[in-house]
Formats: sequence, structure tokens, C-alpha cells
Amino acid sequence: MLDRHLPLRDQIAAKQGNRLMPAMQCLLFRCAMNDPSDVSGLEALFDDGKVEPGEVVAILGKTEGNGCVNDFSRGYAVASLRALLARRMNIGVDATAHVPMVMSGGVEGGISPHFLIFAVRETTRECEGLSLALGVAATRKFEPWEIGRMAQVNETARAVREAMASASIRSASDVHLVQIKCPLLTQQRINHGLAEGIASVTEDTYSSMGFSRGASALGVALALGELEDADLSDDVICRDFGKWSGRASTSAGNELDHNEIIVLGNSPDWASDDVISHAVMNDAIDVDALHDVLATLKLQTERQLDADKSRRIKAVIAKAEPSTSSLIRGSRHIMWDDSDINPTRHARALVGGVLAGVIGRTDLFISGGAEHQGPDGGGPVAVIASRS
Amino acid sequence: MLDRHLPLRDQIAAKQGNRLMPAMQCLLFRCAMNDPSDVSGLEALFDDGKVEPGEVVAILGKTEGNGCVNDFSRGYAVASLRALLARRMNIGVDATAHVPMVMSGGVEGGISPHFLIFAVRETTRECEGLSLALGVAATRKFEPWEIGRMAQVNETARAVREAMASASIRSASDVHLVQIKCPLLTQQRINHGLAEGIASVTEDTYSSMGFSRGASALGVALALGELEDADLSDDVICRDFGKWSGRASTSAGNELDHNEIIVLGNSPDWASDDVISHAVMNDAIDVDALHDVLATLKLQTERQLDADKSRRIKAVIAKAEPSTSSLIRGSRHIMWDDSDINPTRHARALVGGVLAGVIGRTDLFISGGAEHQGPDGGGPVAVIASRS
Amino acid sequence: MLDRHLPLRDQIAAKQGNRLMPAMQCLLFRCAMNDPSDVSGLEALFDDGKVEPGEVVAILGKTEGNGCVNDFSRGYAVASLRALLARRMNIGVDATAHVPMVMSGGVEGGISPHFLIFAVRETTRECEGLSLALGVAATRKFEPWEIGRMAQVNETARAVREAMASASIRSASDVHLVQIKCPLLTQQRINHGLAEGIASVTEDTYSSMGFSRGASALGVALALGELEDADLSDDVICRDFGKWSGRASTSAGNELDHNEIIVLGNSPDWASDDVISHAVMNDAIDVDALHDVLATLKLQTERQLDADKSRRIKAVIAKAEPSTSSLIRGSRHIMWDDSDINPTRHARALVGGVLAGVIGRTDLFISGGAEHQGPDGGGPVAVIASRS
Amino acid sequence: MLDRHLPLRDQIAAKQGNRLMPAMQCLLFRCAMNDPSDVSGLEALFDDGKVEPGEVVAILGKTEGNGCVNDFSRGYAVASLRALLARRMNIGVDATAHVPMVMSGGVEGGISPHFLIFAVRETTRECEGLSLALGVAATRKFEPWEIGRMAQVNETARAVREAMASASIRSASDVHLVQIKCPLLTQQRINHGLAEGIASVTEDTYSSMGFSRGASALGVALALGELEDADLSDDVICRDFGKWSGRASTSAGNELDHNEIIVLGNSPDWASDDVISHAVMNDAIDVDALHDVLATLKLQTERQLDADKSRRIKAVIAKAEPSTSSLIRGSRHIMWDDSDINPTRHARALVGGVLAGVIGRTDLFISGGAEHQGPDGGGPVAVIASRS
Repeated sequence: MLDRHLPLRDQIAAKQGNRLMPAMQCLLFRCAMNDPSDVSGLEALFDDGKVEPGEVVAILGKTEGNGCVNDFSRGYAVASLRALLARRMNIGVDATAHVPMVMSGGVEGGISPHFLIFAVRETTRECEGLSLALGVAATRKFEPWEIGRMAQVNETARAVREAMASASIRSASDVHLVQIKCPLLTQQRINHGLAEGIASVTEDTYSSMGFSRGASALGVALALGELEDADLSDDVICRDFGKWSGRASTSAGNELDHNEIIVLGNSPDWASDDVISHAVMNDAIDVDALHDVLATLKLQTERQLDADKSRRIKAVIAKAEPSTSSLIRGSRHIMWDDSDINPTRHARALVGGVLAGVIGRTDLFISGGAEHQGPDGGGPVAVIASRS
Repeated sequence: MLDRHLPLRDQIAAKQGNRLMPAMQCLLFRCAMNDPSDVSGLEALFDDGKVEPGEVVAILGKTEGNGCVNDFSRGYAVASLRALLARRMNIGVDATAHVPMVMSGGVEGGISPHFLIFAVRETTRECEGLSLALGVAATRKFEPWEIGRMAQVNETARAVREAMASASIRSASDVHLVQIKCPLLTQQRINHGLAEGIASVTEDTYSSMGFSRGASALGVALALGELEDADLSDDVICRDFGKWSGRASTSAGNELDHNEIIVLGNSPDWASDDVISHAVMNDAIDVDALHDVLATLKLQTERQLDADKSRRIKAVIAKAEPSTSSLIRGSRHIMWDDSDINPTRHARALVGGVLAGVIGRTDLFISGGAEHQGPDGGGPVAVIASRS
Repeated sequence: MLDRHLPLRDQIAAKQGNRLMPAMQCLLFRCAMNDPSDVSGLEALFDDGKVEPGEVVAILGKTEGNGCVNDFSRGYAVASLRALLARRMNIGVDATAHVPMVMSGGVEGGISPHFLIFAVRETTRECEGLSLALGVAATRKFEPWEIGRMAQVNETARAVREAMASASIRSASDVHLVQIKCPLLTQQRINHGLAEGIASVTEDTYSSMGFSRGASALGVALALGELEDADLSDDVICRDFGKWSGRASTSAGNELDHNEIIVLGNSPDWASDDVISHAVMNDAIDVDALHDVLATLKLQTERQLDADKSRRIKAVIAKAEPSTSSLIRGSRHIMWDDSDINPTRHARALVGGVLAGVIGRTDLFISGGAEHQGPDGGGPVAVIASRS
Repeated sequence: MLDRHLPLRDQIAAKQGNRLMPAMQCLLFRCAMNDPSDVSGLEALFDDGKVEPGEVVAILGKTEGNGCVNDFSRGYAVASLRALLARRMNIGVDATAHVPMVMSGGVEGGISPHFLIFAVRETTRECEGLSLALGVAATRKFEPWEIGRMAQVNETARAVREAMASASIRSASDVHLVQIKCPLLTQQRINHGLAEGIASVTEDTYSSMGFSRGASALGVALALGELEDADLSDDVICRDFGKWSGRASTSAGNELDHNEIIVLGNSPDWASDDVISHAVMNDAIDVDALHDVLATLKLQTERQLDADKSRRIKAVIAKAEPSTSSLIRGSRHIMWDDSDINPTRHARALVGGVLAGVIGRTDLFISGGAEHQGPDGGGPVAVIASRS
């Protein structure tokens, strides 16, 4: 079992008695799920010996709730995953907290519910060039008044750099996705701040989610050099959406009071068949951004990926959010005006269709809530694919 | 004002005193709408002299209701359009019934609400090859027990052939889309049939919509030679979904008791910049079908259509329906299981994204309810585009 | 046809050649509707000679849309009603603007869609005591920066007093309901204000609806003496919800730029079988408020109204809104947390059930958006009933 | 820990070394929950020594999902409850299967999410008359072709009688509620039947839920003498809704292949402050049925229960379902026509309001799916209350 507070490379080396470790390998498995509690896919991986429970370092999940306030499919999936890990590792459920789990609700349109299981082990294999690398880190606990303000931005940037180091990712340009789970403000936390005499950035718990996601994304931009200190201040957060990261994907949840950070990139210290790449969609139908990513992965295609190439796709991770202008290329969308279906549900369905048309698959990790994560109405799209 | 019961060519000739008519021209305008009652786009066309009220022969509309039972955006749009036509032609609202109007509710994802206005006039221009041609026809009134049975199939086939003749479309292979509005069974109609001693195909009014759409689509298949008499019987309708038309698009409404038929194709007797083409999507993410259509229109593209080509697209008309297997290429979709969002709403959002990714526009006419209209989970996609 | 800018009494007197008019009579008809365009109930009243088109002075309607942003059932119903009035009075549709129409969308739970048609005529009948009286008035047009501020409050108060006078209602305590339709801020209006250098109360068009409803309700409270000038300031509006009217029912729409006001009360100058009464529900399940109203109408009951008494109920008009505490008598409700169903939809369903249990009918006019209209989570309930 | 396969009385006697047992006591606790995984209320009962984990014999829960197909709040609540029981009893989660748990999703309107915890212990107290009694039983496993047919009816009737005996309820008239959880048909089970050459009652998995609920309810009617053998046949089930039980409440789930039965009634062999009573609502707004129940519990009231009486209410359990006529007392409801909100959601909201108006509380267990459970559009309402 790995400790998130030590560099992965050092830990694995330590486990091996410090003998020369050729490289680390990041394993990625995609498991379909029949409902939020269906962890049979991961169970089968354990049973078939494809991965050890202790090797699992992070799990992303696309679950079939509404992705909004009363989406219990996320918590249910996490509880089911943690129960399985605890059972297989013979530890308490609380002891599985070292594995960050980011569940994104909402599989609108044709998106297929699935888990992305990341595991790490050492390997004797050798690869030319860079391979998929993963690092995790956590920020310190935030005070209520820090959320959505520069304190969260700066501490997030620090932790992103820590995760990069832990992953032996040598250059910011080798980072292609930073997935973050961040806290929100509950009424209780807001009141706690007020008792200390410090007002929070907002008194509305729902809008605190946006502030936390936005500040976390700006922290990524700062760590990766997409923005500089001088670009940022409290007034920028959730106000100046012209400033953004093209590699951040953040989601807020009420089960934590700090940020959990998963950095994905490529590194020469890792060896596997997989690499990651990304680009930024300028709007929700900017499919050419995906074509750009595929080209860097030697998966260029004129139409839809053929079956052989489609099989090489290990994961597609993208953000979706309605444009605030209510327009896409000058044509009106109704996402903000529909009181029956939440705007982010429309946006995920749309981006899911745009990407599935090229990829030829529907098990895509598309999440909503894209403050400062790409331009208004657009967002990052990252692809992990095997070399052959 | 044209009479739908006479061939368009003859009527226009008659209006011209039977002097030699070089050709007919089918005009197609796409008007955005801000809400279902917003007919300002059509009004501007009248005011700017781009089209005369009496030249309008058919209107399709993508309106922003839920596209299901309680979608009043369709009736509201039709009432608003008919009030405008009546005012501009100085006739009663009822007298506008000669213009078939097919409203499809549901603009999920990024689909943009819009009208497609078809108008016909004579022209002295000459075009090489075939141009967009349009014909309309109506069946006789159906008895309640005929709906969803072979009587509806056969009479629809007859009327489709009549509309083809009226449009001077010479070969079934030149027909690329048959848009039909068909009746449904109300409790009253079912009871009327029972009083005559003849049971309807179903006692459920909602499922009668599917039967009526399915029988109408099979009528198209029969008229166009996609299926033969021997292929069809009452038992096939809404049971053997392996039999279908690749050019039918049918929708059911409770405001009529017969079928209204709009045939779109290409003909040498018409002259305009526009042509139509179509293909069949094998499933909801079969974007290559769209690439095939674009290739026949000399709009082939490796990625998204560039701005110049995108502007040449005059209309995109497609059907969307969840696959009954709950799978897309082996991955589960949740459209049938979602009790918060109707399955057809998911399907429209998905297909809208798939097509918008290539077309680079979101004002696409994508409608649900695809019984016998293409293979299970797929459906026809037709594009009208200008030659340059 | 009555002119809303003159006292009703004077107009009717004028129409009668100023001969002595014994009294005015307010007629109230409740018409079921099968869909938002179904005005057959009103048509039948005309055909049966029960009311003349020119006698109609106001129409309330409970239509079956979602009652939120994209509820087109309201506009569709108004368009259908105005088309009928225009046809029957042989006037243009625009000329029917003298009849205020307030449509409230949302018939959740068991609420039944219906119109309440108010008409006025002179009568020779005599009644002891007070009878149902109705007055209408309109404010001047509001500038964008006036909406949601004291300018709207004060001008609304003035117009309410005008409507009371027009209805010959002698005392504020004889007013039992003031139904108001008020404007909202569109982006265009906000920008117009900014161009003049004056910021609006909010830049969010949706929240402007609440400000407009709230200011209008406080105007009612001022006119009726429920609050005094000293109680009110810009800072109170939509902030201090401890200040409210127990007789206001306001709704915002984007089709007008002023307030339209309908005052309902009792007056000795009117003669009919009907009287109105009201009380204030302290929370959503405060059914005893309704029992209080019924008692004043001599309709007291220990359980549900029996069929005879239920028939005497001509209209029930109430407001519904989720409590901001997310609690009802200490138990949690999920209205604010449900991202699938809008909070006001839950609230209408709940209050509809509470009232239907006592009334024994479901055609109840329950509308949402209750800022400053009764205490938090509660609201006014008014009943119009015949004496026998 | 009690074994559901032995009469409760015998088990408790056995545990006491067969010494004379004065009586059994049925404890009932109502715990609010903040989300489906919030079992802190039950945890507090354990911590405060109010009940022992091994004493818990059944749990009902009203959870905040949509109550329809994709409602994961039910499974999440059960998983959370079983994890708590397992932890406190130091057994495996599977070993908690002896405690039947019936979760009903859907807290529309004002209904408050809550658990009803039933526990049993022996007591030395003596009560005059009958006290609340509880018995549980299970049927044998059903073959796929038995579900929704007389085999399920008859075996359910047998098990209901067994549960009555286990509860020492002496007369069918002392039974006031039979809560049943029953299986549904999955595609797999249907295929298994077909492989054996026997077709299931339906090939539609969703409609199998109704057949299973309906057959189970008719089994209750048979056991309690509400219907006789001669009244019943396969053709009655889900077809002749004039035949029903006034004391059945059944719900279908895919996690079991047999029926789990909880019988609630009154018995002289039990001693506690609580008693149960019931009546049948003739339609959704038949509040007088509730007044009848309250009268038998000496809780009659002219308006809403006052705070003292309201506190004596321990549980309210009722069924809700839209009338198939789309009418309530002649007025149209739109529950079946609303494609945005499921019909049962409307119905629960409505009945919740009707009952809350009298009870003065919102933590009411109102569940949908009422085939053969009371008359069309109505259903049973049962109340458990303390004597003082």
C-alpha cells in the first residue's frame, strides 16, 4: 500500500530494498458498471491477478446520477469501492482514504457509466521516450474563508508541484491533466468563519462549489505556468473567466476540507504502453481539438477512429459547461433556460456526442462545472492511449 | 396560394397562363426562434421580399418543449405561424391548412430552435443536373382500426407516390427524405372503432403513436422500393424492426386524422442552388454516415466543416432513438433507465452532438420516435446544401 | 368593453345613460381546460349567454407548464384567450389588452388546470351586506433601475389604492387579495439602464423576477396598511423577509414593463351571491388558516367539505414557496436540494394537497414565487364562495 | 438476534430459558436522515441504549431518490444500514439479511426522509387490550413464470398467515398493514423461464414490477379474507382492479427472488403504548379516511392535530397512485401526461400534502405503485400511535 505523502518512486524503491528500480509503470483499467454499487469489474481485475489491491492509487468514476446536488450515485460508488478495497486488503474502510476517488455524476446522452482505475507498480520493462506518469498530493486543510480565494489558489499550486515531483514529471509541459477534488462551504463552515470574524467568499453553499472549483483550477494554471502570480487576485476568481487552465479538471464535494490532487502526464522514469495528451476545446462543438490530441498520439483519423484505433483509447477525460452567452457559434442554446433539465446535464450530453462521433466509443469521462477550466463554453480534453 | 391536391408544376403553370415554364425553384430558409411564438424570422423574410406568403408550401420546426406528451411548444409554434400567414394573406387561420407544418419538440444538448421554411416558385434560371424538389400530398382519413395496420401502410405508399409525381421526381432513388405527420389514437377514436365492432391495434393512446409512425414509415419503404408487398403484414408493424425505410421521418400528432406527406428529393425539372442527399446511421454515433452524405454533396471534410463549407449547409434532418439493447457498441447507455429524463431526450442530445461535431452548427432538425426509420438505435440523416 | 383607466362603476353608469344603477355584480366562472389552448369553456359561456365578451374584466389561469423559465403554456393560453376575445368582439388582438390576464404555470400533484374568468355587469338585485368586488389598475411604466426598489413599491401602492377606489372598496380591511403581474429585467433593459448610468438592483435576469415580485408585494402591504413607509427602504426588498403582505399575490412576466393590478374584496356597492375572505398560512401545512377562512364564509367543517359546501367554493387562490430553512416544523424537506424538480414545483404540489384535503376539489389556483407574500414558507390563502 | 423462520414469541421464550414470558413489546423509532447513507439516527439509538442491534427486526425507509427505475438512494440506504448492523453485531454484512428492509424512494412535495425502525423485546409490562404486534415471514423462491400469477398469490397468502401466527395476531381483523417486498423479472430470469419452455406473464421488466406488486397484494387480500379463492385467477391480476386489499403495501425490487413479508397489527400477547389502525382512501384527496383512522386511535380532531396529539403519531404509512381516469372528483389531473415528472412522484406529493394537513407532520411513509392496494386512485392509510 502506497502512502500519498511520499514520492511514489521512493516508496516503491523502498519496498524493493532500494535495489535499482528500472522504472515505474502506471496501469489504467476501464471497468463498466451496471449501477453505482457495481464494483465487479475491479473485483475481476483482482481475481484475475491483473492488479493487486495495494497497487491501486486513484479511481475516477462516471456514475449515473444527475451530477448535481442530490446525486447520491457518487457517494454510493465511493462507499462500494472503499468496502471492496477494505475487504481485499483486510483493513478498515477508513484506512482506504489514501486512494483518492473522484466520482463525476451524469451520463447524459450516450455516455456510459465506468470506472477508471489507476494503479502503480515497478517494472523491468524499458520504453523509448516518455510514458504515462501519475502523482498524487493533498493540500493542507482550508479555513472557510480561504476557499475561493488566493489562499486556496496558492496552496493548490504548491500541491500540484508536489504531485508533479512525486510523479517524476520533469516539465510542466509534460503535464496533461490535473484532476482535483476540492471542498465546498457548508452552512456550518460559513458560520464557523463568521464566529472567527471572517466572512466567506459567498454565503450560498451552492455557489461556493463554483468558487472552490475555480480557485483550484487557477492554482493549476499557476503551477503549470499558464498564468503568473501577477495575473491573479481574489477579484479574478469566478469573475474574470478569460483566465483559465487548459489542463485542470476540478470537482467539489462536501466530504473533504482540503484539495486532493491527481496529476497525469508523461515521464521518462515510467515505462508502459500508455501516453497522455490533451488540447483545449474552444467551444462545445470544437471537435478539431480532439483531432489535434489524436494526432499527437499517432491516432489521426479522417472520420471516426476505426475499431483497431478505437481499442487503443484507454480513457477520454473532458469538461463540459454551457456557454454563458447562450450561444454556440451564434445559434441559441436553451441550456440555461430549461427548468426541467439542469444546464450541465445538457452540456455533458452534447460534448459526449461530439467526442463519441470521433472516438467511436461512449465510455468517456465528461464532467461539468468548468470554472476557469478552459474558455467559456469550452474546456480541456485529454486522451490516454496505448502506443499500439 | 398553392393547392396541395394538384401537382405543383401544373398549378404554377396554370398561374402563368400555361406559358412555357422553364423550371420550378424550391426555396429553403432557416429561421432561428427565440421562443415557440417567435415568427419574426419568417416575418422578416416577407418584409424583405425574399418570399411571398403564398409561396410557402411547408414548414418544419424544431421547438424547445420536451418533445413528449405535454409539449405545447409545438402547437404554440403552429398557431403562431398560422396566425402570421393568415394575417399576411388576409385569409382565415383555417384557410392556412394547405401548408403542412411539422413541429418536432426537443432541443436537448446544444440543438438550436429553428424553423425550416420551404417555398416554391417558378424560375427562369437553368441548372445543370438535378436540383432540390419538393412535393406534398395527403392520404384519405383513416378509420381508427386502420391506424398501425396495413391499410395505413398502403394508403401512405400511394400518397408518397402521388407527392413524388407532384414534385416531378422521376426515380425513387432521387427521393432523399419523406417527412410525414400522422394521426394517433385517442380514447374517443378507439371507442368509436369498438362501437363499430372493430378493435384498434392498441388500446393505449401513447403506444398508438409508435404504431402510426411505424406504419407510415413502412409505407414510405413500400413506395420507394426499399421493401416489397411480400415483406409486409400487420404482424411486421412495430414488431419486426429489421424492416425499415432509410428515408422516412414520421411524427404523430393528435390534430389530424390522415397522413400529411412532404417528399424531398432532386429533379431535373427544378432549378436552384440546392440539392439534397442522405445516408443511414447504423447507430447513434455512426458519424461516418454523415461523412458519406457530405461526400455526395461535394462537402467532404477530414475534420469539422470549415466556415465556408458550413455556411453551405441549408438543413440537416435526422432521427434519433435509443437502441433497444441499451448498448452502443457494447457499452451500456442509461436512456431507458432514467426516470428523470425521457429516453428520446437523451437520444436527441447525443445525435445532436455527433452531427454538430462535423457540421460545425447546432441548428439541426433531429427528431425522435424512429420506429421502422432506419436500424435499431440508428436512423436516416439527410442534408440539404447549396452547390457553392 | 370596459376601460381600465376609469372607475368601473362610472363606466357602467355611463353605459346605462347615467340612470340610477342599483349595484354592480362581479361574475366569476371557473372553466376547466384540456390544454393551454383550450378556451372552449369560455366559448361555451359566451354561446350560452352566461356572459358577454365585453363584460370580461380579468382572467387568471392555472396552466400545465412547469411554472418556471421555459413555461410556454402561459403565453400560449394568453394568446388563445386573446384570439377568442378578439374574434368574439370583432376587434384586433392588441385591443384586448384592457383585460389583464395572469397565468400561473405548474399543476403539480393533483392541481387541475383551469381559468378563473371575472366579469362585471350592473345588476338590479339587492344583497344584504357586502358582495365580491373587483377593481383593476395599472402603474406607469418602470425604468429598469426602478424595478425591485422603492420606486416600484410606492407606485404599486398608489395603483392599488386606485384599483380599490375603482372597485368602491371602502376599507383596506375589505381587500382580501391583490393579484399583480409585474415586469422583470431583461439583459436589454439592464443595459439600457447602464447606458443611462444607473445600475439595476441585479444583473441576473432570473433573480430580477424575485425583486419585482417582492417590491410589488411590499407595495400592496403599504397600500393596505400592513406596513408603513418607515418600515420600508431599498434594503428591505428581498432581504428582510420578516416584512410581508398577507394579501398580495404577485407574478413576474417579460411581456410588460409596468404593473397590472387586480384587487379583490367585498363592497356594499356590489351585489352578488359571492364573497371573498382570506387568511395567512404560517407554513406550507398550516391547514388551520384555511379552516379560519372557511369559518368566515360560513363554511366551517370538521373534516372535508361535504359535496354541497364544496360546490359553493368558486375559487381558491394561494401562494406556495419552500421554506428557506429547508425545514417544515423541524423536519427536513428536500425541495431546495432536488436538481430534477424545481423547488416551486414541490411547493405547489404540497400546498395543493393540503388545501384539496379540506376543500374536496383540485381546481385550486396555487402559484409560486412568494417573496414578501406571507411569512417564509407560508403565504396567503383566499377563498371566493357563494353564500348558499 | 432473531431468526425469521421461527415464531418471534418462541424465540424470545427460548432465549429466556423458557421461563414465563409476560409479553412481547414492539418498539418503533422514527429517525430523520440527512442523506441516504445517514444512519446516525439509528447509531444514536444504539449508543443511548434505547435499542440493541440484535433487537431490530425490520426497517422501513423513505429515501430521497426519484422512487423510479434509477433510484439508487434505496440501495445506498440499505447498504449503509446493513454495514452499521454488521459493525455493531460483529457479523458479516450478509448475516444481516434476517432484517427485512423496505426502502421507498421519493419524498416529493414536503415529505421528509426518515427511517422507521421496528424492534422486538420481551417485557414485563402489562397493557389492557391489544398492543402493536409485528410478524415477519418469507415465501419460498419463485420461478420466473410464477411471478404475477396465482402461484405468487397463493404462496404470499400462506406466508402472510405464517407471519400473523408468528406475531400472535389472532384475527385477520387485527391486521392493519402488510408490507411486502417482492421480486421483479429481469431479462435473465425471463430467459431462464423460456429455456424451461414456460413464458413469463410479461416480457417487459418494468411492467413485471406491477404484476409482482399486484399478485402480492392479492395474496394479502386472500390471507385476510378480503377476497376469496373464487374471486381470483391469473386473469384478475393487473386487469380487474376492482379487486383489492385495503391493508397491503407492496414494493418490488431486483435484489430478491422471493417475497419478504412484514405484518403489522394488534395483539393481546404484546404490551406497549402503541397501537395501529387503518382505513382506505377512496381517492387521493379522501382525507376523511385519515380522520376515521384517527378516531379509532382516540386522536379525533376537527382541524389539524394539535402539537400534543401530533407527537403521539409514531408512523403514518400510505399508498399513492394516480387515478387511471386522469380525474379526481371530475377534475383533470395531468400526472399521466407529464413527461418531465413521473406520475408516481406527483401522486406522492399530493397524498403527502393531504395527510400532512391533518397530521401536522411531514415525516410520512407514502409509497407509490398501488396495484390491487385499494381502489383506483386511492389506497390504504395506516397510523401507528401511542395511547398517550
